[in-house]
Amino acid sequence: MTNKGNVVVEFSIVPIGTAGTSLSSYVARAFEVVKDRCQKYQLTPMGTIFEAESIEQAFSIVRDAHEAVIEAGAPRALTIVRIDDRRDREMRMEEKIKAVEEKIRSKAPHL
Amino acid sequence: MTNKGNVVVEFSIVPIGTAGTSLSSYVARAFEVVKDRCQKYQLTPMGTIFEAESIEQAFSIVRDAHEAVIEAGAPRALTIVRIDDRRDREMRMEEKIKAVEEKIRSKAPHL
Amino acid sequence: MTNKGNVVVEFSIVPIGTAGTSLSSYVARAFEVVKDRCQKYQLTPMGTIFEAESIEQAFSIVRDAHEAVIEAGAPRALTIVRIDDRRDREMRMEEKIKAVEEKIRSKAPHL
Amino acid sequence: MTNKGNVVVEFSIVPIGTAGTSLSSYVARAFEVVKDRCQKYQLTPMGTIFEAESIEQAFSIVRDAHEAVIEAGAPRALTIVRIDDRRDREMRMEEKIKAVEEKIRSKAPHL
Repeated sequence: MTNKGNVVVEFSIVPIGTAGTSLSSYVARAFEVVKDRCQKYQLTPMGTIFEAESIEQAFSIVRDAHEAVIEAGAPRALTIVRIDDRRDREMRMEEKIKAVEEKIRSKAPHL
Repeated sequence: MTNKGNVVVEFSIVPIGTAGTSLSSYVARAFEVVKDRCQKYQLTPMGTIFEAESIEQAFSIVRDAHEAVIEAGAPRALTIVRIDDRRDREMRMEEKIKAVEEKIRSKAPHL
Repeated sequence: MTNKGNVVVEFSIVPIGTAGTSLSSYVARAFEVVKDRCQKYQLTPMGTIFEAESIEQAFSIVRDAHEAVIEAGAPRALTIVRIDDRRDREMRMEEKIKAVEEKIRSKAPHL
Repeated sequence: MTNKGNVVVEFSIVPIGTAGTSLSSYVARAFEVVKDRCQKYQLTPMGTIFEAESIEQAFSIVRDAHEAVIEAGAPRALTIVRIDDRRDREMRMEEKIKAVEEKIRSKAPHL
């Protein structure tokens, strides 16, 4: 596997059995794992998105983030991962957004 | 239901049975629905996030986005929706991110 | 929209801010909504699956299940919905499984 | 990690850029990986559910299923994984369903 970033990943981890309605301290722990291990990443209001070189790397990072949430005190955790793996050509996070924006622009009548 | 934006929604729609590996023109159609109907929204590399006043409004917008993808030529579509609905207090997209960033900052030793 | 069941839905609802690690009483509330309103449904270890006639009906049922979890005492709830909407022909829950099983059987060398 | 099955996993893989609206032959490939490697598993109309001993094992199996779909001819694949990881006690697929069914029964007035 070369150094192409052709895997884009979105994940979120929900701790269960912790006190209160706030999840941000747990999300922070998971996000720190991504910051340490990824070059391209983004925190969104609904999860964390990052670029990986392979599906192995993607899952390894999510597993570490998941363990960080457990270690922060969650006796149970629900983790959702979505992986977009493109093998026909390179795919980067910013290109995915650009491609959509171009389609919107090209459809607009006078812009 | 008052005008509080206490529902944050993330969705993505995958057309099935369309030609090629690119999905951006379909994502663009879905995103235009969100742009027309929401005040706060964000396009990410893995989907669209928006704020809604209620779960009814949230599902109504996702349904319209889903229909837009079908109308664009998809004979089958897989739609994934995640809804974060908080009733104990108002919740906005940017606050969710700020809360996580504050947790990271307060943990950092010398910043 | 005719009476064809061409929408298959999977959802799960996670209450946040409730005591303890068990979620089953909340899942039970959500599942009762599905039982009352759907003809074809299935409880799985990871969620509830049901057949709907349209995407409107699908979202209406998930919304009611979501509200039932909130009413059961959850100050915050995360709901995930996946919708498989096929417009080229009818699609039923049991047929989706049968189609996969046939593919496995036809590949097996001596069965 | 002992032999406790405390991780329950649900996943689905959507091939992109393949011909036609049917996905069952790709789902079959993914499901065969699970059958070969897991003791407890279930095919549902919306995905595959299995029990794993650890989150490492869970991701390893999903990765192999994902690769099987790519090898079957998909130039791009979207994989969704949901993991329920409980550390406070053992958790099995059938117990999760039983717990919900008991809650429903205990609420019913005359049963």
